[in-house]
Amino acid sequence: MRRALRGPRALLLAALGGAVLVLLGTWSLASVGASAATPRHQVREYWVAAVPVSWNVVPNRRDAIEGESLTAQQTTFRTVVYRQYTKDFAKPVANAQGDEGIQGPLLRARVGDTILVHFRNLDTLTNHPHSMHFHGVRYRPGSDGAYIPGFSGPGANVKPGETFTYRLVAEKSAVGVWPYHDHSPSMMESIEGGMYGALSILGPGEEAPDREFVVYLSTHLGFMTIDGRAFVGNTPVFKAKVGDVVQWDVLTLGDDFHTFHVHGHRWIQPDGTPRDTQVIGPAESFRLRWVEDTPGTWLYHCHVESHMMNGMIGIYRVSR
Amino acid sequence: MRRALRGPRALLLAALGGAVLVLLGTWSLASVGASAATPRHQVREYWVAAVPVSWNVVPNRRDAIEGESLTAQQTTFRTVVYRQYTKDFAKPVANAQGDEGIQGPLLRARVGDTILVHFRNLDTLTNHPHSMHFHGVRYRPGSDGAYIPGFSGPGANVKPGETFTYRLVAEKSAVGVWPYHDHSPSMMESIEGGMYGALSILGPGEEAPDREFVVYLSTHLGFMTIDGRAFVGNTPVFKAKVGDVVQWDVLTLGDDFHTFHVHGHRWIQPDGTPRDTQVIGPAESFRLRWVEDTPGTWLYHCHVESHMMNGMIGIYRVSR
Amino acid sequence: MRRALRGPRALLLAALGGAVLVLLGTWSLASVGASAATPRHQVREYWVAAVPVSWNVVPNRRDAIEGESLTAQQTTFRTVVYRQYTKDFAKPVANAQGDEGIQGPLLRARVGDTILVHFRNLDTLTNHPHSMHFHGVRYRPGSDGAYIPGFSGPGANVKPGETFTYRLVAEKSAVGVWPYHDHSPSMMESIEGGMYGALSILGPGEEAPDREFVVYLSTHLGFMTIDGRAFVGNTPVFKAKVGDVVQWDVLTLGDDFHTFHVHGHRWIQPDGTPRDTQVIGPAESFRLRWVEDTPGTWLYHCHVESHMMNGMIGIYRVSR
Repeated sequence: MRRALRGPRALLLAALGGAVLVLLGTWSLASVGASAATPRHQVREYWVAAVPVSWNVVPNRRDAIEGESLTAQQTTFRTVVYRQYTKDFAKPVANAQGDEGIQGPLLRARVGDTILVHFRNLDTLTNHPHSMHFHGVRYRPGSDGAYIPGFSGPGANVKPGETFTYRLVAEKSAVGVWPYHDHSPSMMESIEGGMYGALSILGPGEEAPDREFVVYLSTHLGFMTIDGRAFVGNTPVFKAKVGDVVQWDVLTLGDDFHTFHVHGHRWIQPDGTPRDTQVIGPAESFRLRWVEDTPGTWLYHCHVESHMMNGMIGIYRVSR
Repeated sequence: MRRALRGPRALLLAALGGAVLVLLGTWSLASVGASAATPRHQVREYWVAAVPVSWNVVPNRRDAIEGESLTAQQTTFRTVVYRQYTKDFAKPVANAQGDEGIQGPLLRARVGDTILVHFRNLDTLTNHPHSMHFHGVRYRPGSDGAYIPGFSGPGANVKPGETFTYRLVAEKSAVGVWPYHDHSPSMMESIEGGMYGALSILGPGEEAPDREFVVYLSTHLGFMTIDGRAFVGNTPVFKAKVGDVVQWDVLTLGDDFHTFHVHGHRWIQPDGTPRDTQVIGPAESFRLRWVEDTPGTWLYHCHVESHMMNGMIGIYRVSR
Repeated sequence: MRRALRGPRALLLAALGGAVLVLLGTWSLASVGASAATPRHQVREYWVAAVPVSWNVVPNRRDAIEGESLTAQQTTFRTVVYRQYTKDFAKPVANAQGDEGIQGPLLRARVGDTILVHFRNLDTLTNHPHSMHFHGVRYRPGSDGAYIPGFSGPGANVKPGETFTYRLVAEKSAVGVWPYHDHSPSMMESIEGGMYGALSILGPGEEAPDREFVVYLSTHLGFMTIDGRAFVGNTPVFKAKVGDVVQWDVLTLGDDFHTFHVHGHRWIQPDGTPRDTQVIGPAESFRLRWVEDTPGTWLYHCHVESHMMNGMIGIYRVSR
């Protein structure tokens, strides 16, 4: 291992050995962490806006599997996505995933934190209302962000030019990775358009991994995409070194079910079963972790064959 | 909490805390219960008939999501369903779910019980044979209710006018909620027509929840339905109070896979992982329980987008 | 029970009782086994070739569900499959599953073993390159068998007439059943054509079951097949006696999700939950075990209705 680990993760990994991969039973981990450390609870604030962008699903215009060429017209569309801003919406910031993914910023927190997400609708493309609905966290109905005629408030139907603040609490059961997405009356077209993102929440006292890879499985323009890109050469190339604690945050929204597979690696589910392929359905999400010990150039992909063949595949490079 | 809990449930819930949600690892619960109490095993008898009804999938004729109006012709069909009768088929009784759901009666039992289900085929609509096939319980081949040419007996092929009694035993592994359905030669059309229901089985010594919600996901007339109804305004409105132990019995049959989601709530899987969305495929079923602590008007729905948009969504109201 | 059991399996089964069914939390079992016995690690060698065959999906030409007759033309195709050979490819051997299944040989090993699979491409039907990609085991990139332009070596693209040896290690996390399949540039057509098989790996010290049933769910010629056959009368008839430890190895590849169901039986998942129906998606796999105690003629099938109706159903006979 590249460096010493401290705390419950070290114990867990030591017990399992370097070659053994771990799907975080984050609940148990969190429990252990809670007794080992009592971090200060924070209020975390994020500023996120819905903004128009032009998005290219296949920037290299190449279907690397069938060896076909594609036109920019076939692969590019105008759409509205979530983008992060600096405090008080002063200016846009490059997202952690912003350069690579269609999804919104990866919002991080820790169990015990209160999260304030200030959302501004800057959709000048469709001029539709939008919202943010968060999975995994606790909130009052006013922060649900889901439109129910007669019941829901302004947070479920944020009009162009308006701003709304969602107040969320990361309870113990929030450990892990969770989707957020538009749940306003525009939901159907918005999710197809890329209005989704992820919340990543650590347990109390839990160390962050060395590498965190967001794998968002979705459909755009008829392509099967990872973070909004299709085919090797366009999908993210994830990189790690032997000894790194790597974490995969896998999520999906829309209509399709997938099976996530990484070549040359296995992980242990919380129930103790080893796996190298895992089913995931719309709005489900899971987090995998392992200590990397297998150098090489590997594939990760959805193992539904037509999805893989239609672009849902990428490369993972592990160096020594 | 609204009232004192006794027995293993109290211990479990106390350990987890009021805010923590529990997906029943019913097996473990049952084990604990078995040592804490030795209830008398019962023989439970039910009388169920296949009867013709007219069923309206969208009684208010309104697609609340797209805001479209529908005609009674688009939303109503004649079909055959399971309905409960009093002893010896003296007269029909209102099912527990009978007013709200297309599904047959919720048949309840406890581990250790013998269950006798007297089934009468009163199908004067199609005059087809029918049967009942039960998941989760133990039985001899004669009570399997599934048609196998050359092997199966009369219980797999109950002709119109005939009666058959299925003898079932709720073993320890029967704890939870399970589907039953027609498995006669008419199975394909029958399930599409609504010939399905649920068995709900408590562990020995396990207390019943304060609220039990049956969520049967299915397809009728091209709509995506919950208990045979589509769209908010038609699907069940489930109600609870803060402090209630609420139980969700989620089931599906047919061709489709779903992801069940409840807004504003999370639960802990038996493997310790927190979730708020759960995949379910044909003939799978699961039972969720939590102590309600989050007042408000919430949505529950299948998170497969086209299913939700086509009606598979309802309201859950929690009062103080 | 028919005979005495020794070792960790005996303990587990005794603890659960004869009537209780077990889905192997193989990980835990393996751990127990590791301390109870220290078997000698072996190098196991297999010789497997891609060879052309003519395959009939419905040999009796009968759709037993709809009662329709089919022509040989509708049910037979020429294809390329994996077949086992004796040492150094001297001559073909009858596979364990070779008489019944389209899939390749069931390759067996034990945790700690090194497995050498010598693969020869004898595809004179399409003259395409082929490969073998193995799930569940550890290997270096050269033995991955998956084609990545610019990165992968000869093992991912074995030309007709060529031979390649894959070197695999069964680590602790390899316990269970896993798919293997073509992952060369010909993958898409190959999997549709039947180029897949299974690896079955025991934990250290773990006893083999009395019966091992391979259930490979797939699509061929538009039929929904088990081991390449459709409809009762063609699909495997699995047989056991009361007291047998029976093991079901369930796998699937392709585009479809399934729910595996066995009549008259239940099993306990590693997380403690009882089930009789289990979802499985492409490249997932699971292994079930129970001590048989329920005589009769039973159905096993995929519970997705259209899959069952289109052939994905078979018979399981338990004698006293």
